[in-house]
Amino acid sequence: MVKPLRFEEELKNRKDHAEAVLKEYGTMADPAYQKIVMEAMEYNLFAGGKRLRPILMEETFRMFCGTGKAIESFMAAIEMIHTYSLIHDDLPAMDNDDYRRGRKTTHVVYGEDMAILTGDALLNYAFETAAKAFDLAATEEEMKRIASALQILSKKAGIYGMVGGQTFDVEAEDQNLPLNEEQMLFIFKLKTAALIEASLMIGAVLAGADAEQVRLLEEAGENVGIAFQIRDDILDVTGTQEVLGKPIGSDAKNNKTTYVTLKGLEQAEADVRSYTDRARECLKRLPNGSAFLDSLLTYLTDRIK
Amino acid sequence: MVKPLRFEEELKNRKDHAEAVLKEYGTMADPAYQKIVMEAMEYNLFAGGKRLRPILMEETFRMFCGTGKAIESFMAAIEMIHTYSLIHDDLPAMDNDDYRRGRKTTHVVYGEDMAILTGDALLNYAFETAAKAFDLAATEEEMKRIASALQILSKKAGIYGMVGGQTFDVEAEDQNLPLNEEQMLFIFKLKTAALIEASLMIGAVLAGADAEQVRLLEEAGENVGIAFQIRDDILDVTGTQEVLGKPIGSDAKNNKTTYVTLKGLEQAEADVRSYTDRARECLKRLPNGSAFLDSLLTYLTDRIK
Repeated sequence: MVKPLRFEEELKNRKDHAEAVLKEYGTMADPAYQKIVMEAMEYNLFAGGKRLRPILMEETFRMFCGTGKAIESFMAAIEMIHTYSLIHDDLPAMDNDDYRRGRKTTHVVYGEDMAILTGDALLNYAFETAAKAFDLAATEEEMKRIASALQILSKKAGIYGMVGGQTFDVEAEDQNLPLNEEQMLFIFKLKTAALIEASLMIGAVLAGADAEQVRLLEEAGENVGIAFQIRDDILDVTGTQEVLGKPIGSDAKNNKTTYVTLKGLEQAEADVRSYTDRARECLKRLPNGSAFLDSLLTYLTDRIK
Repeated sequence: MVKPLRFEEELKNRKDHAEAVLKEYGTMADPAYQKIVMEAMEYNLFAGGKRLRPILMEETFRMFCGTGKAIESFMAAIEMIHTYSLIHDDLPAMDNDDYRRGRKTTHVVYGEDMAILTGDALLNYAFETAAKAFDLAATEEEMKRIASALQILSKKAGIYGMVGGQTFDVEAEDQNLPLNEEQMLFIFKLKTAALIEASLMIGAVLAGADAEQVRLLEEAGENVGIAFQIRDDILDVTGTQEVLGKPIGSDAKNNKTTYVTLKGLEQAEADVRSYTDRARECLKRLPNGSAFLDSLLTYLTDRIK
């Protein structure tokens, strides 16, 4: 009998695989005079990170017994989108952060103008990479799945998803607007949850899941995303720079309303559990369970960094 | 006998149609808390502009007798990409321009952070809009054409296209690098020509043109783009702010090497003609000619604004 891997080992394997996929699709080829921006793209793509989104995507692809390599384009693409959003978030005109994952941010190393363009290049390259999946489609059904995955990716990353959440977040900060719970959840849902939803949905769509199953994964993703983001706000108060690899207390420093300032540490902890439970309820209604995904949920919402 | 429209009338009709398409696809719906960034997107999308790229795209679609509405998604998408690139170009960290098309630029009106995000939102929305075309595909052949159009759009707008050219342009300026002709043509080809190539190619691809025809249009687009950009450099010396709607002499002010400083005004004029001729040679080898496209070429390369 093969002994099942402990979760941490399995997670490491999955992360290594996501890393290998990203290396394959995110290593820039044929540099001409745009060599420096390509270097900056790779500086960011290969800077570590949890690779959470591609791992989630691959897991729902497995749950629905997906086959083929189209998934890899999308695993790389969603990590590129996540990465570009961090580059632009860190800019002087935005959060003005000099460090990310323990390394100097792009604008510190390459200048502000190149950091803006590196983000643009990565966002664009995400769609270029995702669109490459069409070359692998052998049937009309496969074409349709890839088209649907691309629609999900573009919607969840955009104005009705991640960028939409980010803009309201920035606007609220600019105007020193005290956020209420509804507004804060709007930001969490769009800024953080949308890409997690996309990850879970795209894996399933590419494997041929039906509309109701994809909807359940969307709902699960929303709840995971909110729980994940509340945890982030908690860690900004309770974590240490050494463990997180980024400055702590930055929310307080910026006088930012966070979930913790709004609801208190104890309630925030309770809410992390309740959103995580709701995500589990959605996943239970799918035909195939996943012990790995279940452990991953715990890992994400109980994490210390 | 129906009297053929004069070119200017025809161009106005085409522009009005491109405008109507953009209005349909670029008017943002269901605003929640991301209302302001949606307003900023529309502020830029509906700020006038020549609508050159969608007009070119629609013309090659007509030349190859294309039918259906998938083309409209792409006409809107390419204008969104062009528009986002202008927003980011104008940023303080880039060209630092306060006016564009006679109106205040986005960062002046909405702040630098919102201008960055508005650009991001428009770039992302371009792909979201293009991907909507899949909903209209009735056959596998139509799916394939849309997939191919999406691959062209993402490649020509990205690191191997527009963004690649823009990064080298910015880098050369940052480092006060005197450009030689090869380097300048690299920038023109990527920064300016790539989206013109994409426009001509996508119209044809969606109408079912074959690979060699699409290649000829790519080559035509490259030459048109170079001629167009040399004309831009000429107008920066010979034009007036009143006619152009933007500050003139900005290249000289920034001590920038331009095609005119490199080769002189007379040679620049001669080169505009020679690149335009090369474009015409490519177009002549296509099965269907287009008097409108021919006039448009003259209009673009002989323009005074």
